Amino acid sequence: MSNDNLQIRRIAIDTYHENVAYMHRECSMYRAEGFQALSKILVTANGSKVLAVLNIVDDSSIVLAGELGLSEQAFQQLNVAEGSLVTVNHAENPKSMDAVRRKINGERLDQDDFNEITNDIVEARYSKMEMAAFLVATGQNNLDRDELFFLTRAMLRSGDTMNWHEALVADKHCIGGIPGNRTSMLVVPIVAAHGMLIPKTSSRAITSPAGTADTMEVLSEVNLSPEQLHDIIRQERGCLAWGGTAKLAPVDDMLISVERPLGIDSQGQMVASILSKKLAAGSTHLLIDIPVGPTAKVRHMNQALALRKLFEFVGDRLNIHLEVMITDGRQPVGRGIGPILEARDIMQVLQNDPDAPFDLRQKSLQLAGRIIEFDPDVRGGQGYAIARDILESGRAGAKMNALIRAQGAKVIDLHPGSLCHDVLADSAGIVTSIDNFQMAKIARLAGAPKIKKAGVDLVKKLGSPVEKGDVLYRIYAEFPTDFKFAQEAAMQNSGYTIGSEEQIIKSLIAF
Amino acid sequence: MSNDNLQIRRIAIDTYHENVAYMHRECSMYRAEGFQALSKILVTANGSKVLAVLNIVDDSSIVLAGELGLSEQAFQQLNVAEGSLVTVNHAENPKSMDAVRRKINGERLDQDDFNEITNDIVEARYSKMEMAAFLVATGQNNLDRDELFFLTRAMLRSGDTMNWHEALVADKHCIGGIPGNRTSMLVVPIVAAHGMLIPKTSSRAITSPAGTADTMEVLSEVNLSPEQLHDIIRQERGCLAWGGTAKLAPVDDMLISVERPLGIDSQGQMVASILSKKLAAGSTHLLIDIPVGPTAKVRHMNQALALRKLFEFVGDRLNIHLEVMITDGRQPVGRGIGPILEARDIMQVLQNDPDAPFDLRQKSLQLAGRIIEFDPDVRGGQGYAIARDILESGRAGAKMNALIRAQGAKVIDLHPGSLCHDVLADSAGIVTSIDNFQMAKIARLAGAPKIKKAGVDLVKKLGSPVEKGDVLYRIYAEFPTDFKFAQEAAMQNSGYTIGSEEQIIKSLIAF
Repeated sequence: MSNDNLQIRRIAIDTYHENVAYMHRECSMYRAEGFQALSKILVTANGSKVLAVLNIVDDSSIVLAGELGLSEQAFQQLNVAEGSLVTVNHAENPKSMDAVRRKINGERLDQDDFNEITNDIVEARYSKMEMAAFLVATGQNNLDRDELFFLTRAMLRSGDTMNWHEALVADKHCIGGIPGNRTSMLVVPIVAAHGMLIPKTSSRAITSPAGTADTMEVLSEVNLSPEQLHDIIRQERGCLAWGGTAKLAPVDDMLISVERPLGIDSQGQMVASILSKKLAAGSTHLLIDIPVGPTAKVRHMNQALALRKLFEFVGDRLNIHLEVMITDGRQPVGRGIGPILEARDIMQVLQNDPDAPFDLRQKSLQLAGRIIEFDPDVRGGQGYAIARDILESGRAGAKMNALIRAQGAKVIDLHPGSLCHDVLADSAGIVTSIDNFQMAKIARLAGAPKIKKAGVDLVKKLGSPVEKGDVLYRIYAEFPTDFKFAQEAAMQNSGYTIGSEEQIIKSLIAF
Repeated sequence: MSNDNLQIRRIAIDTYHENVAYMHRECSMYRAEGFQALSKILVTANGSKVLAVLNIVDDSSIVLAGELGLSEQAFQQLNVAEGSLVTVNHAENPKSMDAVRRKINGERLDQDDFNEITNDIVEARYSKMEMAAFLVATGQNNLDRDELFFLTRAMLRSGDTMNWHEALVADKHCIGGIPGNRTSMLVVPIVAAHGMLIPKTSSRAITSPAGTADTMEVLSEVNLSPEQLHDIIRQERGCLAWGGTAKLAPVDDMLISVERPLGIDSQGQMVASILSKKLAAGSTHLLIDIPVGPTAKVRHMNQALALRKLFEFVGDRLNIHLEVMITDGRQPVGRGIGPILEARDIMQVLQNDPDAPFDLRQKSLQLAGRIIEFDPDVRGGQGYAIARDILESGRAGAKMNALIRAQGAKVIDLHPGSLCHDVLADSAGIVTSIDNFQMAKIARLAGAPKIKKAGVDLVKKLGSPVEKGDVLYRIYAEFPTDFKFAQEAAMQNSGYTIGSEEQIIKSLIAF
């Protein structure tokens, strides 16, 4: 019916992962057909379809009565030229929301349910509200471990998978939450220098002050095409690039875009998210780092052990060799928090600078050592020594330089921001705790990760003796407003407590 | 800091209950200060504040780099002139989301938690995602009855309350889901004619083909100011107007705007929603209608009884006299579904037309009778006879005319839409079921409630004998596209089954 047609118009509004359609209030479609109370419509053109949330516009300069506006994401998904004629229909709710409602009612879902849900999500049939409902309904302990396995497999199937045609493809992953924990930028060069394939793609920060991709971007290009990535990995046995261009487990990214602003963080979803991404990347051997500490994501050892069991259960059924290392998460790792400052720490370790942060070096060697022991030719317990030898001999540094050249070297400037504020101890004693959340928040307010030179540089760490007036850490920023926000946050809560030796919570991890 | 300021611009986009702010990608604020990954900002001007979801714009005709656009809702909430200078800050997540996360973790919430949550919601600090998380976390059986009481009280406190300064203020409410169930338009005139105060405000349809306000709008104005409402109720002892102008339990409306599109419907939230609204309206005596049937909201008698207990528990603690009537919800009530068709049925009953739908008349008399028995001067069991006498004597019709005049009479046209399609029986037998959902869907697709003349007119009802080719019901529409949508839906599923007498599910309700 030709009188149903509206002309498509691209509306240059970035609505993140949610498709939005803009219809004029005077549009005959809207006026005549009871679209008013609807929140979702189905737009069809040339066999291509897109579902979108409907916003009503009263301004003809944005959209005319005969037009249908689509936000950037929706426009790209529909993939037709501006001015094309489209038909608009009442959108049926995604069928798989029935399964979500059954889950809300306490039922158990099966593999088909999870396949349909992930399929509807990846096809953008879910609104953010619906994704939030799914996340809460399947959050916390609402999924048993079989359901978790089904979900992981469904997420894995939602996108592309890679195959490296090698028997041993290693990877590592940290569950996150510890600022400065940039071990990947040391582990990958060490493991690749050993000759093991470690095609690690990295993420950018979402709510943290830096992701590996943000920090690596200080040294080299990280936005590579899937083909470039593939070539570099083949040639260098590893890479340190952004993984966002590959379409691996895309449902994961879409769920994360809702999960993070909601601040809900379920162990089950974390396991499904990590394992689906790693399996899609073709990994056969995986080391998971679970930091434990009072301000880490995992606060108690029993939680860490329960999480390890979950990883092992799902990993075994999906046929990936998986090991878990529980590590010390009581404070940030290294000194710098923010891309430039973290890159500086890493270069110090790679250059065997005696002043390099000891904890970052040690943790990276421990992790690299465990991965090297995946190699059937390496005797159990020898991995650490091999990793240390690779680092101390300069081979890790050489591999990093090769990776930087392969990805596209940048002119490296490791000077932090020009605005600097010292946060001082207000009493004498011993540093008894450093709040990971607060340090991350201050670094983020200072501008990290977007402003590479912004962040926080820790001068004192857990157990350091301090005098009143000593510098605890420095805030670096490039822009006055950021600088003000970060200083205000530090003034409200410095993130440090100073007391006596026995007040330090002992780590349960031998380190 | 004056360089933080952006000029406010009103963006004529209706984003329903979610505040949206539009910032240009080249805006110095957005470029410099790491707002990118943020989804929410706090906008401040002259001491007035508004929280909004951030959308990024690449088109300077929508918003300039030095401007901040606000959607209609957000602009109205901020309440400053266009061009005013505003400051923009990182929005803190609403504090009460901590309580929601605790609830997701299985904890029990207390009165303070619910007060803080409803307060944050009413102040528009929750995004739709966050409201969805709250609804799922507190949905189904996740609230015990004490928590439900806390939630109801918190919702009641979130808005204004009315006080009629009378000992007996009656109201009725149906939990919904049965098309054509417009008993309020008969109960209110009967009860008000008896002299009892029944200040019933009505809702518009959200997902159904008509609400009482939509149907009443065929006969009179329904958009009245709170002052007009008050005067009419004082003078006529009742009203049949839209309740949206009074700010009663506003949290309820905001939650419903998320709940309905999600299709989640929890008994607990229904109880809190209904009781908070009725208490805010100043009711002292309330009759709740719970229809039970295979395609009603409540499908089994045991569910209806459990729901009754919940209503009674919370009602008693909030000091409202509450009675529940469990009614026959196996099929639509009356013949018409849609504003004009339902208004026609109601006028037939009021005019004591022998052809008036018997079930609508009987149900309305039963409900009105129970309410009349709230009157201490009426002997138990006499209510029905009094109600019938008021109806048959013409006093109910006269009261309806008085209400119509008081609210503002319209030129009444009860002719249904000009496009008409008969849906025919495809076999002979007895009508054994009529699907409430499907009939509502067809009427809605035909254009109801927005198109007053659109809807469905039932010719045969449960138990009617039919011959092959007999008309089961008629679809009325005014616009060809609506007509097509509704016909297609009826073709896929007529909503009727035809079989033999013994296949009819017997109602458990004496009627």
